[in-house]
Amino acid sequence: MLDNLSHFDIFLASQSPRRQELLKMAGVPFHVEVVPDVPEVFPVSMAAIHVPELLAHNKMKAYEHLWSLPQTLVITSDTVVVLDGQVINKPANRKEAIVMLSNLSGMVHEVITGVVIKSADKEVSFTDVTKVWFRELSEADIIYYVDTYKPFDKAGSYGIQEWIGLTGIRKIDGSYFNVMGLPIDKLFHELTQF
Amino acid sequence: MLDNLSHFDIFLASQSPRRQELLKMAGVPFHVEVVPDVPEVFPVSMAAIHVPELLAHNKMKAYEHLWSLPQTLVITSDTVVVLDGQVINKPANRKEAIVMLSNLSGMVHEVITGVVIKSADKEVSFTDVTKVWFRELSEADIIYYVDTYKPFDKAGSYGIQEWIGLTGIRKIDGSYFNVMGLPIDKLFHELTQF
Repeated sequence: MLDNLSHFDIFLASQSPRRQELLKMAGVPFHVEVVPDVPEVFPVSMAAIHVPELLAHNKMKAYEHLWSLPQTLVITSDTVVVLDGQVINKPANRKEAIVMLSNLSGMVHEVITGVVIKSADKEVSFTDVTKVWFRELSEADIIYYVDTYKPFDKAGSYGIQEWIGLTGIRKIDGSYFNVMGLPIDKLFHELTQF
Repeated sequence: MLDNLSHFDIFLASQSPRRQELLKMAGVPFHVEVVPDVPEVFPVSMAAIHVPELLAHNKMKAYEHLWSLPQTLVITSDTVVVLDGQVINKPANRKEAIVMLSNLSGMVHEVITGVVIKSADKEVSFTDVTKVWFRELSEADIIYYVDTYKPFDKAGSYGIQEWIGLTGIRKIDGSYFNVMGLPIDKLFHELTQF
């Protein structure tokens, strides 16, 4: 597997322990490198479906010191939650997290991840979408979850693999691992063909 | 949460570490008790959708020593994989595991779990279904997975949370945790209302 990449050093540009774990479990050998403070800016008029791939492309610009080297491959990605066409990112604080989860309660939203894979002479990018059906969440459940799990590093203020994901999500349509932050099956297959 | 069950001792009748982990992560306090050798028999004419709940009911009969006690609650469940209306259970050996995965490759199948919750004076049961889309798997990938992960305790010969699930499954429609063996969100909500 991935014999086509045996001469590459692969770098994952993400601090997320969930993304690192998924790439590891898929059997991909990689290093982690994170450049701080790449601003997440996109045109307000842009359709939500295009935003994560644009943000992943923007992040990639900050890694030129890696992908400009021969035999080096960089992976960037960005995940957003979209409710009624509105992009929801990470909550800034406890209050924002509680509001976000109250808005998601009883609704269907989309988790959209954009991924870019780049070497000195090739670039591939793609987007993956998963629909998520939340049950009606009580205020007590939301407060319990936010105060116990502190989901401030998570788009939409929840982790599907945590308590609220187990008890509060009725179903999904798409890739589960995309909801965790990385559409690992698509990424793996793009890597096998890179 | 689950204050309605505070006077109950809850028993999960399953050896599966995945089911135990899911119930624990949902915050349900429980003990594990397993009675060996409950035969998994069902009428050949029975529609696949009804089989797991019947098998969970059959298992429950073996736990009368628990649920006949006051303030005791028992949970049994059974999970099957169904391809083209045919029930697929656990593989008996390496060869069967390889054949099962070859049959699932490139196809859509259903994972069906039946759950029974029983105390001395009340019984609730339900069924949950998740559709799973497998990519085309190469023979080399199937053999690598079977020999590395030895999925002999798993209906359909795969774990969605293992290598083949990360790289070989394109999407699902339904509950992810049901594919792991326990539809935890439905079970949790039945427990809150028991």
